[in-house]
Amino acid sequence: MPEDNATTDRRSALAQALAEAGIDKPLEDVEALLQGVAAAAPQDRSWLRLIHPDAAAGSVGVERLEALRRAYAEASDGIDTPQQAARLAALRAELAERGLDGFVVPLSDEHQGEYVARRSQRLAWLTGFTGSAGMAIVLAERAALFVDGRYTLQAAAQVDGALYEHRHVADEPADAWLREHLAAGAALGYDPRLHGTRERDRLAAPCCDVGARLVPCKDNPIDALWADQPPAPLGPIAPHPLRFAGTEAGEKREIVAARLAPKGADAAVLSAPDSIAWLLNVRGADVANSPLPHSFAIVHGGGDLDWFVDRRKLLPEVPAHLGNAVNVQVPEAMADVLDALAGAGKAVLVDEAATPVWMVDRLTDGGAKVVRGADPCALPKACKNAVELDGIRAAHRRDGAALTRFLAWLATAPPGSISELDAVDRLAAMRAGGEHYRGPSFDTISGSGANGAIVHYRVTTESNRTLEPGSLYLVDSGGQYLDGTTDVTRTVAIGTPSPEHRDRFTRVLRGHIALATARFPRGTTGAQLDTLARQFLWQARLDYDHGTGHGVGHYLNVHEGPQRISRLGSGAALMPGMIVSNEPGYYKTGAYGIRIENLVTVTEADDANGGFLGFETLTLAPIDRALIEPGMLTSDERAWLDAYHARVAETLAPLLSDDAATLAWLRAATAPITAA
Amino acid sequence: MPEDNATTDRRSALAQALAEAGIDKPLEDVEALLQGVAAAAPQDRSWLRLIHPDAAAGSVGVERLEALRRAYAEASDGIDTPQQAARLAALRAELAERGLDGFVVPLSDEHQGEYVARRSQRLAWLTGFTGSAGMAIVLAERAALFVDGRYTLQAAAQVDGALYEHRHVADEPADAWLREHLAAGAALGYDPRLHGTRERDRLAAPCCDVGARLVPCKDNPIDALWADQPPAPLGPIAPHPLRFAGTEAGEKREIVAARLAPKGADAAVLSAPDSIAWLLNVRGADVANSPLPHSFAIVHGGGDLDWFVDRRKLLPEVPAHLGNAVNVQVPEAMADVLDALAGAGKAVLVDEAATPVWMVDRLTDGGAKVVRGADPCALPKACKNAVELDGIRAAHRRDGAALTRFLAWLATAPPGSISELDAVDRLAAMRAGGEHYRGPSFDTISGSGANGAIVHYRVTTESNRTLEPGSLYLVDSGGQYLDGTTDVTRTVAIGTPSPEHRDRFTRVLRGHIALATARFPRGTTGAQLDTLARQFLWQARLDYDHGTGHGVGHYLNVHEGPQRISRLGSGAALMPGMIVSNEPGYYKTGAYGIRIENLVTVTEADDANGGFLGFETLTLAPIDRALIEPGMLTSDERAWLDAYHARVAETLAPLLSDDAATLAWLRAATAPITAA
Repeated sequence: MPEDNATTDRRSALAQALAEAGIDKPLEDVEALLQGVAAAAPQDRSWLRLIHPDAAAGSVGVERLEALRRAYAEASDGIDTPQQAARLAALRAELAERGLDGFVVPLSDEHQGEYVARRSQRLAWLTGFTGSAGMAIVLAERAALFVDGRYTLQAAAQVDGALYEHRHVADEPADAWLREHLAAGAALGYDPRLHGTRERDRLAAPCCDVGARLVPCKDNPIDALWADQPPAPLGPIAPHPLRFAGTEAGEKREIVAARLAPKGADAAVLSAPDSIAWLLNVRGADVANSPLPHSFAIVHGGGDLDWFVDRRKLLPEVPAHLGNAVNVQVPEAMADVLDALAGAGKAVLVDEAATPVWMVDRLTDGGAKVVRGADPCALPKACKNAVELDGIRAAHRRDGAALTRFLAWLATAPPGSISELDAVDRLAAMRAGGEHYRGPSFDTISGSGANGAIVHYRVTTESNRTLEPGSLYLVDSGGQYLDGTTDVTRTVAIGTPSPEHRDRFTRVLRGHIALATARFPRGTTGAQLDTLARQFLWQARLDYDHGTGHGVGHYLNVHEGPQRISRLGSGAALMPGMIVSNEPGYYKTGAYGIRIENLVTVTEADDANGGFLGFETLTLAPIDRALIEPGMLTSDERAWLDAYHARVAETLAPLLSDDAATLAWLRAATAPITAA
Repeated sequence: MPEDNATTDRRSALAQALAEAGIDKPLEDVEALLQGVAAAAPQDRSWLRLIHPDAAAGSVGVERLEALRRAYAEASDGIDTPQQAARLAALRAELAERGLDGFVVPLSDEHQGEYVARRSQRLAWLTGFTGSAGMAIVLAERAALFVDGRYTLQAAAQVDGALYEHRHVADEPADAWLREHLAAGAALGYDPRLHGTRERDRLAAPCCDVGARLVPCKDNPIDALWADQPPAPLGPIAPHPLRFAGTEAGEKREIVAARLAPKGADAAVLSAPDSIAWLLNVRGADVANSPLPHSFAIVHGGGDLDWFVDRRKLLPEVPAHLGNAVNVQVPEAMADVLDALAGAGKAVLVDEAATPVWMVDRLTDGGAKVVRGADPCALPKACKNAVELDGIRAAHRRDGAALTRFLAWLATAPPGSISELDAVDRLAAMRAGGEHYRGPSFDTISGSGANGAIVHYRVTTESNRTLEPGSLYLVDSGGQYLDGTTDVTRTVAIGTPSPEHRDRFTRVLRGHIALATARFPRGTTGAQLDTLARQFLWQARLDYDHGTGHGVGHYLNVHEGPQRISRLGSGAALMPGMIVSNEPGYYKTGAYGIRIENLVTVTEADDANGGFLGFETLTLAPIDRALIEPGMLTSDERAWLDAYHARVAETLAPLLSDDAATLAWLRAATAPITAA
């Protein structure tokens, strides 16, 4: 599954719907109109004529247009202006009572991660905005919502522009807006649990410039107003056995502790739940699809650790698993431990982006030396050990067998008999019985025809399509296994593909192979490799608008840093044992989507001429030969494909011996391409 | 010519010398020793035994080792401790007299460019350090020199560690050092003409933290001590005719002025001499190899311009050329113009990296609104207009003809008859007569055998080698023509090349072709393309340690921003009309160097499927077919090479009609590779 990015999926969906309705009006105009009428009553159909003058005369299907409006309204949830206005007014009253002239509302929670529990979705509650990145600032007389280019459209559809100015965060950043609108002497509140110090400093600079103050709030004023705010999740935390983790938690603490000394730190604050899960060899259940234990920790230079976690979440066997060096404490005790570190004049490592401001301030104010640097678990967690890699390979064999059963079923089903939702259910059933299987690693993307062109498509009963002959079907799915996390995309021809389908698929495949076979010197970042996967599309003036690869955890987050393969990159070098996805694609809006995704692990290149690295492909499943144009491949590329398919067949066949039909399909699907 | 980078050329030279002397001691150990004995008297040869115990017994050539020491001492200029100590003491006395507790000595001059006039080499005068990047800070009790990884070795060889602590600028930055050693209440001086505000702010932060002050000096204390400081250069400034520049200076001022409004600026400060040269259609002569007119300017939103320049440099025809909208002023008048802008409350665009601090402070203090952004000339200057591109193509034809005459002479000379210096002279003579030729665009790199492996090698009478049969010869050179700047590298087999030579050269060529034929979407940066040029070397676990391409000016700097093609990149997108070099290479220390460099210009891709860009190759000269292994090339690569050679022959033949021998050689050198 690609990382969320600048692709405006919503816009793709709309473009597709317009194409189906036969409307060639500028997309922008229709969007603006739909935003205006998203909340209109179904009876009021006057807007139809604004989209197409013939709609009333019936030459364009009224029902299709109404479906289009409804789809858009549902996608955007519309704008509930009265509710937004009421909540904004309530917040302003609350602020006034607290002596504040404004308040900053970020999207993030205490852990700055990709998933935010319902309880922490304060920005959505206040403004109605449900994108994955954004921030609001509320002053007494005005308010603004800051979003990036992915979400300007969604913000317009969800948030009343009369209540919140809509600002593009790159062009019109918050600091400029604050410089303009914040009065001298004003007090701007913020929740010091929800921001890292880098973001706080960025807010503090304009306050300082205009003579205002940035004031930390003891508790979040929105929590005081949100009557039915859900409680914090209480997912159970269990030990993650050594036979999967490969390294004792005690040894991991030593590894992490050893990373502190070179930075001159006596201790480090950990706020990323997956870092804590990795370090303690535990797994939790506080968010969907990823076994995260929401909590905080402080690891000390000697290897001892304070874990601040709600004890109600701990299964009975956890304390014995943790041992004496891990001191389980209630979350409220963290302040005291920080104070003790500060009082002893210790140097403490914090992450400018992730460690909550209040912790850093508490350390600084108490006399600690604050050292800024990356989470010390991030890199050792990313570089999987031999046991983890063996487990991940095993998980990929089981996952590949399940996917192969699904693909064989798909290939042999009667034409037109399967829907996107049928496919999701079938694939889930195939995975469900697998050893160590714990659930999906993300919501399956099951896109037929035009739906496949929506990069982060999630099928609903409304959007559900039948897999029609002559179309392409894209399925991106993954599993959480105790021994590894998988993430795989296959694109399948339903019936006979067109020459264009084959050309585009083969270009994507060539890029996939170029990345899979790359050799590169130690120190190379994923950003340097991204173009290898795009070059053959570029030659045809085509491209895809998402990253080529993201890091993947070991029975943890399916999106894991610091490594990634994308145009922008993270600056992190690829290192042996890291896992990344290799997932180039091509998307023709309104028509079809193609993506070929395998997970790979970084390996030492297989010779003595030291310093060079390469990839080992982990994912095992046939790549649809019907979509490959053999004449476009070089002999090296054909050899790679045939060798990969031979390995898939050889590895998966023993796991499919109970199913002669699937086995026969697998043999045919993995036959050498030269014989095609 | 590649940009200077992390390649430690000095280290390569030393490694090569060690290899030749048959010494396999760790490079670091020998370096440390040589740094210690660099200034030893030639008679004192006791150090020889530290390098090799057999040296005294004569089994290792004493003369070679002595040559090695001497070469190293010459490379480093050694350490003149008494002089460094005297100058440091004098500076401290001067600071004390001015009531300062310290002073910051940057390497840069007022214009923050690549070339620094002798007058401005204050860091070298004070410390002896002659690298191209660095900074010293002198306090009363201690001093430090901050350099990057390229120069740690050179700093150790040139600067006495007892006088200056040597700090790696990335690991031990100046701000940390200042926080540690600056006392509360101290006054740290700096020259506000020599720093941009970003650097000043970086120095100010630690001063603020410890309660010290960063104090601008009215005049530079080093200038007061430097008895024989050279005067500022007074190179003549001449008009650059419209038939070369293509766009009237008045129109350029309108283009630049139009770039101010979107930034909310009423005027912009220009401090880059090449920006001023481009904008006014003039060229100067204040540094070697590039026609720069040292000066400053302020361009106003209406298109008027104040030019602060020493009038003694202006040729008589310049004022009429400039016209009435350009107000020539003495440099000292700049303060008044800044005051006037400030007094009128104008918004003025400055560059955080380049505009001298004193100008920005003067604006701010006077009430101007300071807008931060890039030099508004940089992008329009980088994107050449049609007349400039035609001129550049014409210059490349003449330059290619001169280079071809040189290559033909080289190919037909008796084996072993030519030295590196002979080649430099011959190539200069071939270029000298060319129409519009004004001199070299940089010092020619003429490297035979092992000298070719030194990326920025400059041949001297001491290093001069004969071009021996069986070796490779690398020649990187360029010309300044009134209609364009060239920069080209060819690698030539002297006699019969080895299979290794051919393998490596062919890999470099394949990378060169991959870049030359790349197509890429608008918005792509050079960093995204860099790997295309390295991929075939990487497959053999080989690489080169410099960028793949740099921007090039039009009869201006041979290194020009903002675009570049390198791992790190500049973030600047490649845009039509930009010129970059395409110069992958491979260097085997102590053995040979390979580089194939053509200049290319960014073009719109030749179809209607908009938004994609590509390259047009400008440089015209044969690529040595004797070094190409045809079996390693794909058919597309062979086709590119043959088409390029056909174009070279067809284009250059008319310019070589006076020289039958060269013509015959050209025909053979550009024959299709398939016929090889």
